[in-house]
Amino acid sequence: MTYCVAIALDEGLIFASDSRTNAGADQVSTYSKMHTFDVEGERVFVMLAAGNLATTQAVLNQMRRDMEDGAEESLYTVTHMAEAAAYVGRLNRQEQEKHTDALSKAGFTPDATFILGGQIEGEPPEIFMVYPQGNFITTSSHTPFLQIGESKYGKPILDRIIEPSTPLGDATRCALVSIDSTMRSNVTVGPPIEVLIYEKDKLAFDHYLCLETDDDYLLTLKRAWDENIKKAFRELPRFDWEAAQGRKRRGTQVSAKKKKTVKKKK
Amino acid sequence: MTYCVAIALDEGLIFASDSRTNAGADQVSTYSKMHTFDVEGERVFVMLAAGNLATTQAVLNQMRRDMEDGAEESLYTVTHMAEAAAYVGRLNRQEQEKHTDALSKAGFTPDATFILGGQIEGEPPEIFMVYPQGNFITTSSHTPFLQIGESKYGKPILDRIIEPSTPLGDATRCALVSIDSTMRSNVTVGPPIEVLIYEKDKLAFDHYLCLETDDDYLLTLKRAWDENIKKAFRELPRFDWEAAQGRKRRGTQVSAKKKKTVKKKK
Repeated sequence: MTYCVAIALDEGLIFASDSRTNAGADQVSTYSKMHTFDVEGERVFVMLAAGNLATTQAVLNQMRRDMEDGAEESLYTVTHMAEAAAYVGRLNRQEQEKHTDALSKAGFTPDATFILGGQIEGEPPEIFMVYPQGNFITTSSHTPFLQIGESKYGKPILDRIIEPSTPLGDATRCALVSIDSTMRSNVTVGPPIEVLIYEKDKLAFDHYLCLETDDDYLLTLKRAWDENIKKAFRELPRFDWEAAQGRKRRGTQVSAKKKKTVKKKK
Repeated sequence: MTYCVAIALDEGLIFASDSRTNAGADQVSTYSKMHTFDVEGERVFVMLAAGNLATTQAVLNQMRRDMEDGAEESLYTVTHMAEAAAYVGRLNRQEQEKHTDALSKAGFTPDATFILGGQIEGEPPEIFMVYPQGNFITTSSHTPFLQIGESKYGKPILDRIIEPSTPLGDATRCALVSIDSTMRSNVTVGPPIEVLIYEKDKLAFDHYLCLETDDDYLLTLKRAWDENIKKAFRELPRFDWEAAQGRKRRGTQVSAKKKKTVKKKK
């Protein structure tokens, strides 16, 4: 499995991904799911990949070949981000079509989903989610992030924290917390965690982190988050009956609403 | 959709459920998914239900009829909780078999999943998850909770907080936070939230809460949790480059690791 998230902010873009792939519980490997392409000062692209590893590798290889061979369409030729997303969608569908028949006979699917983000000079920075069918969606001010793979465990914290005005540092931490929570709850999502922070209009990548399990910052962050969240939890308001529970043990009766139940007829 | 959770603690059992059902986005209804059966002082049972509503209603009706008709096997006759789970599993499979053919032709499934918990006099309190196939699992000291329905959004907070030694009050709050996070992230899970707290060896239900959206305690809890978690988040350790980012804007260079990229050949 996989978990990747990308966030579109006023200040720029954040990309984060885990690195675990598995084909069955006994075929677990580590592969980077974050891939960058850039012409510094002119255009930058980040691809996050989830799904069939053969498909995602084939799509990424084709993208590289198209750039190197000066193909008619490539990340060098596209003039805006949505055009790049359409190009990735087309490659994705083409690669899947090659193997759908053989894979479906074996009970597998060639499906792959990508997040493509970046900026082309003169255009705004954007992120897109490219579906296995080749179509794609982008963010909005109310939904400033996109997730692929095992996305549910890590969504609540993003829902709570992320707004377009969130600073890059906070959003990066939130992405890390989101991935860490996912790794705790699902063993098919695993380290290292890669994070790439893109500052709007820089047209170059400055901050890239690849955090192994024993990375000092990651350990400190995990410990702090665990402590802080437990503290946050301890400080929640109590129920009336919790105070009463102590009294009751000393002989006082507790009142409580009762749920209608099926009782034995006497 | 549905989200229900049950927790087995040293002090007793916690049950919590949402109340939203939907058959498509335009057929959304409110149904209680928490059902209790008891002979006070002798045996208490709680059923949480997820899946096909016709199946869950049919199973619950059959359970009530078996009790009322003095059937050979019912919640009155079972001598331990696992026997009760096997009985529910059998009813579940039987009800599904009646409709599988017709439903599958229409592209539906009769699958239902239950959590059954409670205590029979002289036996320990236990909870079981009963699968659509009729088999069932219980908890362990490392996995003291069971979830059915839309369970992923609300799992990380349970993973972090719940241990067998967690007090009933804390576990109840954790279940509420877990359901609230799920409702925020998925509209098919909705209020009212029902919560039932069972104190070990009481053989009667004392604390039952049915929290509507505008319930005072629920509103206070939601607000407090949102504030506390944002505070917990704000207090996380910063990245080096966040301090540097300020300096850089005044002309200092920031160092950063770089991810290998495909660059344009010159």
